[in-house]
Amino acid sequence: MKLTILGCYAATPRTITNPTSQVLEMNGHMFLIDAGEGTQVQLRRRKLKFQRINHIFISHLHGDHFYGLIGLVSTFMLLNRQADLHIYGPKGIKEVILLQLRLSNSFTGYKLFFHELTSKESEVVFEDDKVVVRTIPLDHRVYTNGYLFESKPGDRRLRIGAIEDLGIDRCYYQKIKNGGDITLEDGTVVKNSDITYDPDPTESYAFCSDTCYSEQIVPIIKDVKVLYHESTFLDSEEHYTEKTKHCTAKEAAKIATLANAGTLILGHYSTRYSDITLFKKEAETVFKGNILNGDDGAVFNL
Amino acid sequence: MKLTILGCYAATPRTITNPTSQVLEMNGHMFLIDAGEGTQVQLRRRKLKFQRINHIFISHLHGDHFYGLIGLVSTFMLLNRQADLHIYGPKGIKEVILLQLRLSNSFTGYKLFFHELTSKESEVVFEDDKVVVRTIPLDHRVYTNGYLFESKPGDRRLRIGAIEDLGIDRCYYQKIKNGGDITLEDGTVVKNSDITYDPDPTESYAFCSDTCYSEQIVPIIKDVKVLYHESTFLDSEEHYTEKTKHCTAKEAAKIATLANAGTLILGHYSTRYSDITLFKKEAETVFKGNILNGDDGAVFNL
Repeated sequence: MKLTILGCYAATPRTITNPTSQVLEMNGHMFLIDAGEGTQVQLRRRKLKFQRINHIFISHLHGDHFYGLIGLVSTFMLLNRQADLHIYGPKGIKEVILLQLRLSNSFTGYKLFFHELTSKESEVVFEDDKVVVRTIPLDHRVYTNGYLFESKPGDRRLRIGAIEDLGIDRCYYQKIKNGGDITLEDGTVVKNSDITYDPDPTESYAFCSDTCYSEQIVPIIKDVKVLYHESTFLDSEEHYTEKTKHCTAKEAAKIATLANAGTLILGHYSTRYSDITLFKKEAETVFKGNILNGDDGAVFNL
Repeated sequence: MKLTILGCYAATPRTITNPTSQVLEMNGHMFLIDAGEGTQVQLRRRKLKFQRINHIFISHLHGDHFYGLIGLVSTFMLLNRQADLHIYGPKGIKEVILLQLRLSNSFTGYKLFFHELTSKESEVVFEDDKVVVRTIPLDHRVYTNGYLFESKPGDRRLRIGAIEDLGIDRCYYQKIKNGGDITLEDGTVVKNSDITYDPDPTESYAFCSDTCYSEQIVPIIKDVKVLYHESTFLDSEEHYTEKTKHCTAKEAAKIATLANAGTLILGHYSTRYSDITLFKKEAETVFKGNILNGDDGAVFNL
């Protein structure tokens, strides 16, 4: 699981910071999460093969999370993309993208699927044999969802030495990987646990931005391996959180603690702060797990 | 008259080039012309006091000319702008901006005026006592206008020495600046031309992008001081101009010649070319006036 943060600052893009967008690579997928203005340039800057992106998840329709989407959709068109593209986001996202394509008399050569969200309950929005993605309803000024990405358990791993010693034929290998016991020719039953190791551990990543402090998300993200949680403010600006519906670093850390997260990544910093390490310092007073400062261009192998 | 080119490359923004946007400063105005994705960041990069922009002129609704507009409108809002903002562009521009503001539940604290254009004839779209701006209907794949910016002649300039020698009272100065003759107490009539110089010369700037080769624009831009004309292709790709409705550098130079332009600025280069000086070289074979290579970040004091 690899996370590339293209941008993680709040509000307006500047020469030194970018609005929210990140790329999550998991089990062969390359997912784009949010797409603030300039996302396509950041994808190029980070040398990501962004034509591999087939699924884009938009949290909410504030500009710093989606104004770069139409540019990316258009660029895919100019690059003669053929693969389907799926866009998940709040109701209205289809209208705004299609209106802009229509006004420019443009037609994508690839199929564009919109999955518009309206539910206030967590729901599965994407699933295949490797990954499942579900929404995390957040509490912000407009309808907003975070997203929980979970890899599915793979096959059990063969203990080749033991299997060969028992003279088990290769034609049974998939049955063994699937967890099945084996009956030898002499009638002996070999337990699966004696000839396999557990599958590789599953991975999970929760993206939670933008939101005010909300314990309602804890059951959804319980035991998540990696939690990205917005931390727009430091404690000294805690009085802004109620009106803006954002969080402090300590509040993000409290959610990470309640959820028993393995790692907390902080981001969506207000541009008023020049030293983002202060966010980590404040979060460390609350959360005792691993804490990382998200930053533009940061690549985390998780 | 000062022109700052924020971006002058065709199609998709890249790490090294920006789509079309430029700032024209004329007679105290700061006009923004087109607004491709990333315009607000380029305005910051060039250290322009962009809150002074009160009039934005959009040529057409292809993404590389207006996807940065909504971000700028939003940033003005976040910066608590109070001054009115006027946006000129093809019909549809109001719907796409207001839809995005509505979806984000945002309201600008400043008044936003849309001047939607549909005419295929040149028309005055802005005029005050210092400047007049009129459209230049262009021929592109979608409805497109260039814009002609002309400063108005100022007052005649006083020859202070001659006026004082004649003992003319200060209360007549504005009359003299306006071109009036003066009758002295002894009945002598002093001709205005004997006590004034001509006003400062007027300035004019024509922005023509995107368009195919079109001689129909020549009467509108006749004798323009500075012409920015798109030159998407070199001669070797001339065969692309018909389908894409763009121009070669030589075609831009031919329009400059027919219009008797003082200076030709080239731009809107296809990103397939790595050496933009070739555009100037090709244009020089046709146009004998001054030719400048537009480039991102170029500042021309004209």
